[in-house]
Amino acid sequence: MTFMRAYNFSAGPAMLPLEVLERAQSELTDWRSGMSVMEVSHRGKDFVACAAAAEASLREVLAVPDNYKVLFLQGGASGQFDAIPLNLTAPGDTVDFFNTGQWSKKAIAASTRQGLTTNVIADEAASRYTTVPAPGSYTPTPGATYLHYTPNETIGGVEFTDIPKTEALLVADGSSMLLSKPMDISQFGVVYGGAQKNMGIAGLVVVLVREDLLGRARPSTPEVFNWTAQAKADSMLNTPPTFSIYLLGLMLDWIKAAGGLTAMAGRNAAKAGALYAAIDGSEFYSNPVAVDARSRMNVPFILANPDLDKEFLVGAEAAGLTNLEGHRSVGGMRASLYNAMPQAGVQALIDYMTTFAAQKG
Amino acid sequence: MTFMRAYNFSAGPAMLPLEVLERAQSELTDWRSGMSVMEVSHRGKDFVACAAAAEASLREVLAVPDNYKVLFLQGGASGQFDAIPLNLTAPGDTVDFFNTGQWSKKAIAASTRQGLTTNVIADEAASRYTTVPAPGSYTPTPGATYLHYTPNETIGGVEFTDIPKTEALLVADGSSMLLSKPMDISQFGVVYGGAQKNMGIAGLVVVLVREDLLGRARPSTPEVFNWTAQAKADSMLNTPPTFSIYLLGLMLDWIKAAGGLTAMAGRNAAKAGALYAAIDGSEFYSNPVAVDARSRMNVPFILANPDLDKEFLVGAEAAGLTNLEGHRSVGGMRASLYNAMPQAGVQALIDYMTTFAAQKG
Repeated sequence: MTFMRAYNFSAGPAMLPLEVLERAQSELTDWRSGMSVMEVSHRGKDFVACAAAAEASLREVLAVPDNYKVLFLQGGASGQFDAIPLNLTAPGDTVDFFNTGQWSKKAIAASTRQGLTTNVIADEAASRYTTVPAPGSYTPTPGATYLHYTPNETIGGVEFTDIPKTEALLVADGSSMLLSKPMDISQFGVVYGGAQKNMGIAGLVVVLVREDLLGRARPSTPEVFNWTAQAKADSMLNTPPTFSIYLLGLMLDWIKAAGGLTAMAGRNAAKAGALYAAIDGSEFYSNPVAVDARSRMNVPFILANPDLDKEFLVGAEAAGLTNLEGHRSVGGMRASLYNAMPQAGVQALIDYMTTFAAQKG
Repeated sequence: MTFMRAYNFSAGPAMLPLEVLERAQSELTDWRSGMSVMEVSHRGKDFVACAAAAEASLREVLAVPDNYKVLFLQGGASGQFDAIPLNLTAPGDTVDFFNTGQWSKKAIAASTRQGLTTNVIADEAASRYTTVPAPGSYTPTPGATYLHYTPNETIGGVEFTDIPKTEALLVADGSSMLLSKPMDISQFGVVYGGAQKNMGIAGLVVVLVREDLLGRARPSTPEVFNWTAQAKADSMLNTPPTFSIYLLGLMLDWIKAAGGLTAMAGRNAAKAGALYAAIDGSEFYSNPVAVDARSRMNVPFILANPDLDKEFLVGAEAAGLTNLEGHRSVGGMRASLYNAMPQAGVQALIDYMTTFAAQKG
């Protein structure tokens, strides 16, 4: 290796394991029969086997129950914000939402756009999105078709520890959480997530949908967003994002080799724990999120003196610590710690932060 | 190089230039600052510049007029089948279609699904999709919002030489034609196409839309399919398919280095001309398409004795000529000859066909 590998704290698209990149690199021109995986027909036996293997690995790693379909779609989680109402409701139906930040708000806007009576039954705007609803603090609407929530919000950096309780279906935007820890899929009607955080690269959204929920789509649902049609076609109603699906398979192989989701959960908790401890133990850095709502995936932090933000970022970049600038709505810094971020990367960040604070604090 | 590079005749995803694959391979782990292009934020300066360069190259190569927006979206051309009515019409509006095969039919089905009065003003079903409408043989519907057609159909292997005449907007599914030859974009309201034929890899659909057509989307349009919203956000309303956009840029660099679309048109005409001449000069092979409607991109051909199909395919594969099996609805063989297929690949196919026919004919 002649290059210095960055510790990349991007909120997504995000860092990938070097082993995954090297595997993809090694077979990029010659995956099967003198062809790249990018060049083969999605209906040919090689790619059909590749997609089936990725699905089988996902089912194994995430312990997906047999009565759930796994769909590999395009358009991101943002596309599913509209697809969910189109697939599960008729106009005028009632649904519940938690509002815990920007991603919740986008899903809520889509629900309204699709003609639903959209009740925000818990709204964390008052805390400036530094909290999540406490168990028992909200009242689901009787007759609501589903409760939608965002288990992890990448911008505010809040995460649910518990799964919400409701009589309705539970629908979760797992974009920045799926595959970061074990999850009891059977408690959900639908879980979906963009791959570009913990699962691979942009261009692929994974949708897990309980089979009995198929068959309800509105007639006007764009066909590529119609879960029923896509399930029937094994997600190949049209050309799927083949390279992104292949990368998901490589990522799942890497997760399995690293010990599966229990190991991921342990690693991810340790990384976040170390970084929060460093922040909390410092007078120079702070994190505004309520301790019981802190995200393991996205850690925003503020410097005591925001005039030093730029210098902090320039020095970090020079030290190979990239993409630490915070979201414009929050300011300061943000370190995203998805599956591929090694403990050593977090330690390098903590060391840099400590040195910087000692020099400037 | 220690591997034998295939001549891959897949209808898409399809062959890529080896130079493009090798460039992607060389920088797969270290594109910028120790990160892969797959790992960087779509909102970071490096990727924003990458997407802007791809757009600029596309505008240059295809001579896209300044009053057209270039959108990089997900969901394939199939997603646009629904997005077009959602962005351009209200339910009940009237639109015209040519039906020249399977892709036309899918677009027609979406038009009906979105509540439009959908007139098929020329239908080539009677010829079993071996013809295209002759100029002057069809009557556009007065008041129709647009005429939609498919300049090249990959399954039947038919292609328009002329641009249809209508007072309405012209909307073209250019999936298997865009970047294969020069095109007068100014004659169209909308041209769109999946990238996985002549432009790169799956996961990206390019939409060219005349600016004055923005602002008409139905309120219920899924936001990722809303051209107006995506144009305003430079196609980054949500995470775009970053690697597919990067590959489009590499492909455009390759096209420019090869002499642009005039050179592509010459190469593609020569390749198709040689293959059709070999078919027509043989008693053993035949192509059912009317001569003036033959596709330069997809050449279906039938063996005199279909019992030999399997043997033909096995021998071809052994000779490094892959993915020649015809579409199940047509049978026989199909050779797709997109930009990346070299003349030498077509000659190798012709040589193989000649030898096979001499042995079996």
